[in-house]
Amino acid sequence: MNRRHLLTTAAAAGLLASGCASTASPPQAAAPVLRGTGDLGVVVLRASGTLAIIDTSHRTLLGQVTGLGDLSHASVVFSRDTRYAFVFGRDGGLTKVDLLTQAIVGRVMQAGNSIGGAISADGRLVVAQNYTPGGIKAFDAQTLALVADVPAEYAPGKLSRVVGLVDLPGQRFAYSLFDAGEIRITDFSDPAHPHTTRIPNIGRQPYDALVTPNGRHYIAGLFGEDGLALVDLWQEPPKVRRILNGYGRGEQTLPVYKMPHLRGWAVAGRRAYLPAIGHHEVLVVDTESWQEVGRIPVAGQPVFVMAQPDGRQVWVNFAVPDYHRVQVIDTTTQQIVRTLEPGKAVLHMEFTPRGESVWISSRDANRVSVIDTHSFATQAVLEVDSPSGVFFTSRAARLGF
Amino acid sequence: MNRRHLLTTAAAAGLLASGCASTASPPQAAAPVLRGTGDLGVVVLRASGTLAIIDTSHRTLLGQVTGLGDLSHASVVFSRDTRYAFVFGRDGGLTKVDLLTQAIVGRVMQAGNSIGGAISADGRLVVAQNYTPGGIKAFDAQTLALVADVPAEYAPGKLSRVVGLVDLPGQRFAYSLFDAGEIRITDFSDPAHPHTTRIPNIGRQPYDALVTPNGRHYIAGLFGEDGLALVDLWQEPPKVRRILNGYGRGEQTLPVYKMPHLRGWAVAGRRAYLPAIGHHEVLVVDTESWQEVGRIPVAGQPVFVMAQPDGRQVWVNFAVPDYHRVQVIDTTTQQIVRTLEPGKAVLHMEFTPRGESVWISSRDANRVSVIDTHSFATQAVLEVDSPSGVFFTSRAARLGF
Repeated sequence: MNRRHLLTTAAAAGLLASGCASTASPPQAAAPVLRGTGDLGVVVLRASGTLAIIDTSHRTLLGQVTGLGDLSHASVVFSRDTRYAFVFGRDGGLTKVDLLTQAIVGRVMQAGNSIGGAISADGRLVVAQNYTPGGIKAFDAQTLALVADVPAEYAPGKLSRVVGLVDLPGQRFAYSLFDAGEIRITDFSDPAHPHTTRIPNIGRQPYDALVTPNGRHYIAGLFGEDGLALVDLWQEPPKVRRILNGYGRGEQTLPVYKMPHLRGWAVAGRRAYLPAIGHHEVLVVDTESWQEVGRIPVAGQPVFVMAQPDGRQVWVNFAVPDYHRVQVIDTTTQQIVRTLEPGKAVLHMEFTPRGESVWISSRDANRVSVIDTHSFATQAVLEVDSPSGVFFTSRAARLGF
Repeated sequence: MNRRHLLTTAAAAGLLASGCASTASPPQAAAPVLRGTGDLGVVVLRASGTLAIIDTSHRTLLGQVTGLGDLSHASVVFSRDTRYAFVFGRDGGLTKVDLLTQAIVGRVMQAGNSIGGAISADGRLVVAQNYTPGGIKAFDAQTLALVADVPAEYAPGKLSRVVGLVDLPGQRFAYSLFDAGEIRITDFSDPAHPHTTRIPNIGRQPYDALVTPNGRHYIAGLFGEDGLALVDLWQEPPKVRRILNGYGRGEQTLPVYKMPHLRGWAVAGRRAYLPAIGHHEVLVVDTESWQEVGRIPVAGQPVFVMAQPDGRQVWVNFAVPDYHRVQVIDTTTQQIVRTLEPGKAVLHMEFTPRGESVWISSRDANRVSVIDTHSFATQAVLEVDSPSGVFFTSRAARLGF
């Protein structure tokens, strides 16, 4: 089944890659318009397995692409030319969508249970991180042909669930093994023989991770104990170090309605802003000493804590029951300067490339709001069905996204 | 003459902006192919008034657009959708080039002597900085229609040459008045009534400037005396402060073969790397204290000192007679790790968005070399006539470019 999928879609993608839309567009595709792709984006419509394609210059909905399967907890990366979106579904489906023809140009069922993916800096490899079977798989970004399968085996016959996959410079990817308490770095520069570096004993149950914007520090959250595991990727060989003991699941005193997304962590100047787990606080950490330097009380349990591209403000959304609110922190004063209520069940936020606007999805309000980050005025509202993740093509130019 | 130009090109651009290429392409345009624009770029071919359009994924030359006038010291910004390049010529020509149809879609002679420009974060305003007449002018990015003319008048009837123009968040732009020793910030959010904030007495003869990647600190180099003028743009009202006394023209002991381009200054982590003026050194500065923390001996008088997107390495080129060399500094050790000789008269360098490659123009070798930033291997060589500036569409997503 997988192989048949692979061949069909590879062939299709190959044909489409040759370019001109009149010959290339599948039936469901819209009449393609010659246009730039630097201001495009997508919104995941989780309930209907649909991807909405949007234009961030005119703040409009350009079209919708259906048939992407189970998009709960879906994530998206973009091709290097910002024409294609690669959508990782929870059901193990990896779908390549052409934003110009608004059509699916490739789709493979690559695992039984998947939790996202990444794309290499040169744009040639798309890599998925999987729960079942536990491991990562690399695909040719043009054809979606399988390039390499790297099981996360940590004991004879035992495969770990993989979390926290991020791209690194070169064709390298870092990720964490939930069941093995280990961080691994796999280098695909020789795709036939991927080389994996193991960093064991990082702590129990890493549940998510991020890499700092410069690609230097990989940080994994630990579900099984206090603190976080930090790896300096510029060190040879890379070593793990425990930071922020007292942070995390272990000191938990409140029920946790939703584990924070570490990928959302904000680094502004030399400070990082972290969601406290369970507590109604955002932690402020010095990124040189990795010591906590402050805590900011907020309106609920933070889920995403995101810095504007300029680092001037940090935006926070919350777990139920406070998930109708968004708060904005001024990083020069550490004060909350605004509380917004854009609609029930705020699930995600995405900044325009230079940060003049933020797009906020409110699932239960069936709405995506575009907010001016300076005046906080609502610039546009898009009505869409149960929106969750919002992703812009400018991510293609960034490390660790 | 200017006005007639304006109307013709405005109409043309308006027509073209409506989209589909078959109706839109002027005669000289190549048959447009439906494609993404996130991996496009341009190389300025100074001698022939030509713009070469390149593809950074396949490292190929896609085409050339002629008729751009005097491109000495030309600079380029990109439209928000990364489809169009705006080219500022030394002769005051502002040309809008469609990277997809490879055609000029708008051109105005907007001044007698121009020194570059910038584009607003929302992509709506293109602003030129001019020597004659001294001041800045804002144009509609779609039509190139003049939106606002802001002369740099500093005494009755006296207009200053303008340098160091950068975009700021909002529709604001910061720039320096060479003849008045003043920094100004003009806000075009009400285009009919642009509002200008003046910061006087910053020091004699600011000759160039830059804004830090987060848009917070505006720094002008002073030709007339030692040191640099620093403005914290997040302060209300913004105030000027002198930094690095002992740096600059005043302490000059060597002949200066070419003034460094401040725009090239590298900020890596909390350190900035600055070209010493005249001396064969790169200065290392702490961006919190703005104190000098080190000097790195290099192979000549540095012109551009540029950090890789990840800040891991800083690349330096030089003034004559050392302009056939490029040196690479490791920012973790402050040591030079490689000296390259890509060809005579290295004028500019540009990194791919995630920094896996750097494109280096060697004017007298009629060559642009693509170098792997990790292995330093040459990945490709493009033969073009007298290349100078290299600019990639990923700049559209960055502040201060």
